[in-house]
Amino acid sequence: MTQKDPYLLTPGPLTTSLSVKEAMLHDWGSWDGEFNRLTGEVCERLLRVAGGEGSHVCVPMQGSGTFAVEATLGTLIPPASTTLVLMNGAYGQRIGKILDTLGRPYLAINKGDYHPPRGEDVARVLADKPEIEQVVVVHCETSSGILNPIEEIADVCREAGKRLIIDSMSAFGAVPVNVAELPCAALVSSANKCFEGVPGFGFAIVERELLAASAGQCHSLSLDLHAQWQYMEKTGQWRFTPPTHVVAAFLQAMCEHEAEGGVAGRLARYRRNRDRLVAGLREIGFQTLLADEWLSPIITTFLSPDSPNFEFSRFYDAIKARGFLIYPGKLTVADSFRVGCIGQLHDEQIDAVVSAISDACQELGLSVPVPAPAAAPDNLEHA
Amino acid sequence: MTQKDPYLLTPGPLTTSLSVKEAMLHDWGSWDGEFNRLTGEVCERLLRVAGGEGSHVCVPMQGSGTFAVEATLGTLIPPASTTLVLMNGAYGQRIGKILDTLGRPYLAINKGDYHPPRGEDVARVLADKPEIEQVVVVHCETSSGILNPIEEIADVCREAGKRLIIDSMSAFGAVPVNVAELPCAALVSSANKCFEGVPGFGFAIVERELLAASAGQCHSLSLDLHAQWQYMEKTGQWRFTPPTHVVAAFLQAMCEHEAEGGVAGRLARYRRNRDRLVAGLREIGFQTLLADEWLSPIITTFLSPDSPNFEFSRFYDAIKARGFLIYPGKLTVADSFRVGCIGQLHDEQIDAVVSAISDACQELGLSVPVPAPAAAPDNLEHA
Ligand SMILES: Cc1ncc(COP(=O)(O)O)c(C=O)c1O
Ligand SMILES: Cc1ncc(COP(=O)(O)O)c(C=O)c1O
Repeated sequence: MTQKDPYLLTPGPLTTSLSVKEAMLHDWGSWDGEFNRLTGEVCERLLRVAGGEGSHVCVPMQGSGTFAVEATLGTLIPPASTTLVLMNGAYGQRIGKILDTLGRPYLAINKGDYHPPRGEDVARVLADKPEIEQVVVVHCETSSGILNPIEEIADVCREAGKRLIIDSMSAFGAVPVNVAELPCAALVSSANKCFEGVPGFGFAIVERELLAASAGQCHSLSLDLHAQWQYMEKTGQWRFTPPTHVVAAFLQAMCEHEAEGGVAGRLARYRRNRDRLVAGLREIGFQTLLADEWLSPIITTFLSPDSPNFEFSRFYDAIKARGFLIYPGKLTVADSFRVGCIGQLHDEQIDAVVSAISDACQELGLSVPVPAPAAAPDNLEHA
Repeated sequence: MTQKDPYLLTPGPLTTSLSVKEAMLHDWGSWDGEFNRLTGEVCERLLRVAGGEGSHVCVPMQGSGTFAVEATLGTLIPPASTTLVLMNGAYGQRIGKILDTLGRPYLAINKGDYHPPRGEDVARVLADKPEIEQVVVVHCETSSGILNPIEEIADVCREAGKRLIIDSMSAFGAVPVNVAELPCAALVSSANKCFEGVPGFGFAIVERELLAASAGQCHSLSLDLHAQWQYMEKTGQWRFTPPTHVVAAFLQAMCEHEAEGGVAGRLARYRRNRDRLVAGLREIGFQTLLADEWLSPIITTFLSPDSPNFEFSRFYDAIKARGFLIYPGKLTVADSFRVGCIGQLHDEQIDAVVSAISDACQELGLSVPVPAPAAAPDNLEHA
């Protein structure tokens, strides 16, 4: 069977291998020992990749990644405890919205569309507001593609004695992270990102002691991470019906991740994809939003052609007609589009998408090279 | 490709057709028009099957069925409004637990393990407690397999001017229901039950006006049914990443459901499965928990062999070795096991599972016929 679907140059769902999809050609009993072993192996492997074997536990959660983020925040943060949320894009803002909905107090450092939150920003606020008990940060802020400096933020949190929670949805599996060394209290991700599974569940890697102390705190029955963990410890089963086929696909995806060399292997391929993509598109005149040092190997934002003829949906369709799906931009400051580097994409697909974008520009009469925008984003100040 | 997996005689996840699973051999962009059309068609078809085209809307929700139940209750029930929950098993009790977690006031009629809640029970409580604004009932209470009398309950609710919410998780698609005529304010079900899809999302069929009036009421960001609906109306997309492959499998499952004659066709096959199963197991001495009039065409509870040698896990394994997975009982009053009738099961599989159970009894030296239990459940009083 050949891949006839368009390639997904999007940050998940993404193009998965045929063997991952074929793992879904079976039915499992959610009560049966065979499926429980499958779940157990997935959690064990995730814990190992995160470096949390001695200190943390891995708890999966049905639903999309946002469900796992909400489950983690709702379960781990006591109702009256104050949180500091670092925002520089849509996913940081979403964390604030979750806490708003839950009625839990928080402060925010909002760096706008794409400026990175720095360790010194966090240190300043923590010194000023001793009531803060935990800090939440997005690892790769997928809305711009920036890779936030979680190490320096973790250092500051450790020194101040605050817990760190990381939304590593789009980074975990490709960007190295060690939850015990960092340290972080919880890291959240999902099946359909850098491990290249299909969507249907997320998971949290949580400090065992913190989770054990979180009974009864969650605002939701379904999203109660502590109850899910306890039930799994006792029975090996998910507390409510798991997405059996998606879990089976994920185990296959994790085996392929390991075979590619784990995080290091995947990072190497994604970096190569990004470098090839950025070089190719710069050559035909496109500019990246961010300076090279902030470009993640996950997804890259490019400024849209500054042409009166430019209309994203027509640009999208012209590229789709050539076999590739790209992603719209999510910036308030500049018109942009995004191209992902993750999923089953290799040199061949990256070269082809660069050609497709170039051809689409010609077909639509878009003026490339793109003129530099007013505030040159390559000269972005980092604080 | 042949079906080598054991057959699932369980109430979902269940044995699906190969063509349903093969629909997952593609990757979709969750932002792309093609996937949006797929979602739109699923919702349209569900609304049609429920008879809610003029009055209701269909909103899918990521996660398991419980997530969709919690989303529906959390979105539709105002924080201070009192609910009457009808309980006669684990799933009715779970509705109470959800309302406990949400801190929303409720009263319960608890009929124990398997006695049906009757219209007159509900009428009495509604007359007594005028503060009640909605009644929640489970359609097929899967924990015993009883089919609750939702028509008489709906009549009472209509007369009293109360809203009715139905957890029809395990019945919708096989037991006829018309939400406009009944009427009911909301009906909840999921992908992996009588439509024979794979697990990964649920959905609610909700009165349009009620949903429109529910903005901002939900306790959860992820489970906000109103926000999901609004976002879908505006963009055609799910608010957060959908389980794309599971949705594609579900559309295929709905096409196969229609080809089998819709609800009527599926009901006929499931009834035939149940009748054949019950007759076969009665012939070798087993007794059903319930009298015939209460047996659903979904799943049937049988009393365990009353033998000192009986141990469910060994019984399960002996039947599994013959290619079938059955389900444990969920009763507090009597030792029991359950056998489902739903999924890709036909005469051949039903006959084979009866033989497998018979052979397992012989292998394990279990005395069948089973002696009648103290309180003969066939003579169950219905109130
Ligand atoms: C950093 C980050 N957080 C959260 C999410 C939300 O995940 P989902 O769309 O699966 O709910 C995403 C999705 O792309 C993400 O990239
Ligand atoms: C009547 C009923 N309600 C709710 C549920 C819960 O569904 P899930 O296990 O998908 O959360 C089930 C599952 O079997 C059910 O039968």
